[in-house]
Amino acid sequence: MKKLINDPSSVVADALVGVAAAHPDTLVVHRDPDFVRRADSPVPGKVALVSGGGSGHEPLHTGFVGPGMLDVSCPGAIFTSPSANQIYAAASSVATEAGVLFVVKNYTGDRLNFTMAAEWLAGGGIATELVIVDDDVAVENSTHTAGRRGTGATLFVEKIAGAAAELGKPLAEVADIARRVNANARSMGLALTSSTVPHVGSPNFEIGDDEIEMGVGIHGEPGRRRIPIASARELVAGLAEAVVSDLPFAAGDRVIALTNGLGGTPLIELYVVAGELASFCAARSIVISRTLVGSYITALEMAGCTITLLRLDDELLDLWDAPVSTPALRW
Amino acid sequence: MKKLINDPSSVVADALVGVAAAHPDTLVVHRDPDFVRRADSPVPGKVALVSGGGSGHEPLHTGFVGPGMLDVSCPGAIFTSPSANQIYAAASSVATEAGVLFVVKNYTGDRLNFTMAAEWLAGGGIATELVIVDDDVAVENSTHTAGRRGTGATLFVEKIAGAAAELGKPLAEVADIARRVNANARSMGLALTSSTVPHVGSPNFEIGDDEIEMGVGIHGEPGRRRIPIASARELVAGLAEAVVSDLPFAAGDRVIALTNGLGGTPLIELYVVAGELASFCAARSIVISRTLVGSYITALEMAGCTITLLRLDDELLDLWDAPVSTPALRW
Repeated sequence: MKKLINDPSSVVADALVGVAAAHPDTLVVHRDPDFVRRADSPVPGKVALVSGGGSGHEPLHTGFVGPGMLDVSCPGAIFTSPSANQIYAAASSVATEAGVLFVVKNYTGDRLNFTMAAEWLAGGGIATELVIVDDDVAVENSTHTAGRRGTGATLFVEKIAGAAAELGKPLAEVADIARRVNANARSMGLALTSSTVPHVGSPNFEIGDDEIEMGVGIHGEPGRRRIPIASARELVAGLAEAVVSDLPFAAGDRVIALTNGLGGTPLIELYVVAGELASFCAARSIVISRTLVGSYITALEMAGCTITLLRLDDELLDLWDAPVSTPALRW
Repeated sequence: MKKLINDPSSVVADALVGVAAAHPDTLVVHRDPDFVRRADSPVPGKVALVSGGGSGHEPLHTGFVGPGMLDVSCPGAIFTSPSANQIYAAASSVATEAGVLFVVKNYTGDRLNFTMAAEWLAGGGIATELVIVDDDVAVENSTHTAGRRGTGATLFVEKIAGAAAELGKPLAEVADIARRVNANARSMGLALTSSTVPHVGSPNFEIGDDEIEMGVGIHGEPGRRRIPIASARELVAGLAEAVVSDLPFAAGDRVIALTNGLGGTPLIELYVVAGELASFCAARSIVISRTLVGSYITALEMAGCTITLLRLDDELLDLWDAPVSTPALRW
C-alpha cells in the first residue's frame, strides 16, 4: 500500500487539518467529535442541512458544505458511518427554529446512526426530517445495504434541497423536494481497479488486468457482473441502458447528467465518458439541460466512474441553477 | 492498459466531444485544428490569453478557458505539443486590437511551436507577447526541456494575467504581471505510480511498490532521486524544503499554496498533503494567504502530487481574488 498519508489511523484527522487550512474563512472544523460546518451557521430562519457518512468519498460531503448546500458534514472513519453522537453534535451546532433535514445515503450503519441522532434532536424540540438516497440501480441489496445503495444522486439532493433551504422554504417543503430529487434520479457505476482502505492495507477486491466490474458500489461492493474491458462507448451504453430503463427515462425528458470519477480516473477519460453519455441520450431524445463532469463522489483511489441522470422539472432546474458556494461546487 | 477510452488514437477528439457537450453555453470547441475558446471571444479591447500544450494534463488548459482566465486553449496529442498551425488558428480566433499573450510551459516543442505561431500573428500586425513558465525546481534540464520545466505556476500565471487582461490592462503590463508571477513561483512534485500514454500502451517509467520518485515531471520525466515510501509529513517536507530554499521564500512572505494532484491521487490524500504544507509554512513564518487543493495539472492517471508556492504582493493577491468563471476554477 502506497499512499500520501502519515498513518492509517490518522488519515481523516490529518485531512481535516488540511480542510481547516484551505478554507479558514468559510468552514469551521470541529474535532472530537469531528464535523465541518459553515462558518456562518447556524443561519437564522433557514432549514439546516446535515449530511455525512464514511470518509474516502471526498469531496462528498465536506466539499459540499457552504451557502446553497450543506450546513454541516460528519466524516466517519474511512468507509464507516459517523457515530450517532457525532451526528447529533454536528446537527446541534447548526440547528435552527426552522428545523433540520438529514440527507442519508442508504447504508445500514448510516441509516441507524442518522435516525438515532434525528430522534435525539427531535426529543429536544427541534423539527427534523430524514431523506434516504438510494439511486444506484445496479443491485437491489448489497453488502451493508438493505435496498438500493446511495451514490451520485446525493450530490443532486444536497445541491437542490440546499438551494430550497437557502430560499427560506419550510422544512416539509425542503424534504419533499429532496425526496423528489431522489425519486427522479438513477445511477450506475463501473470499476477498472479496486481501492485500499488504509487501516486494512489490502485491496477491497481483486480484479484482473482486462476486467471491469459493472455496477460496482462506492465501497467496492460487487456489481452485476464482471466483463472484459470494452470501449468507452460500449461501457457507457451498458451503464446508461440500465439507468434509463429503470426509471424509465423517456424521449423528451429533460435531465442533468453527472459523469463522476471514482478517484483514480483522470479528467480526460471522464470527458470521453461524458461525450458518450451525451450521444447515448441524444439518440433517445433525452434532453441534457445541464452537465457536470468531475470526481465528486469517490471510492478512494478506485479507477472508474458512475453516471447519474436526474429527470428535471422547472423548479428542480431553477434550484440547480441557484447560487452555491462550497469548496467543490461553486457558481 | 485499461482506460475509459474508445481508441488510443481518438482520446483527445472524444474528450472534446465531452467538453462541447458539458459546456455548450460558455465554450466553443473547434475541430481540425483543435482549439477551445470562450464563447464570447474575441472580447473587444481585451488582451487575449492563449495557452495550450500536450493533452493528458486536464483540466489544464481547456478547463481554464473562460472570463477572467484564458481566451483559448490548444490541446495537442497526449504529452505532445500542439502544432504551430493549430496555435496560430486558435490565436487568430480570439485576437483583438489589444494584442495576444501566449502562456507557454517550458518544453522544447511548445516553445518552438508557440514562438512560430506568435511570429506569424505579429507578421499580420497583431501585437504579441510570449511568457515562458519554468517553475519546477526539481531539475535544471530534463527530457524535452532546456532549463526548468513548467508546472503548477501555469495555473497562477493564467489566473492572474487573465484577471489583469479582464480589467483592460495593456499587453505590456499583462505580460509583465505574468512574468512576475512566474518569477515568484516555485514547484516540485512526486510520483507514487507511473502513467500510460494510450498510444504507447506501456507505463512511462517503472517504479517499485515501495518507491517514490521525488521531483517527477508531469510527463513522468525523472526527478532528483528515487526514495522509499515515507510519511506524508516527510515527503511534503522534502518537496517544500526544495521549493522554499530555491526562491528563497522568507519569514513574513505571503503566499498562495497550491496542492495539486497528478490525476490518480484521491482528494483525501491531497488534503493530508495540504495540511502538512500548511504546518511546514507556519513553522517558517511563511504566511499562506490563499490555498487551493485539487487535481488541476495532471499526468494522466499518475498517483502523486505537486506543490507550488507563489510569493504575493498586494496586486497579485487582488488579481487572484478577482472573479473567474471557467470549468475548473470559478469564484
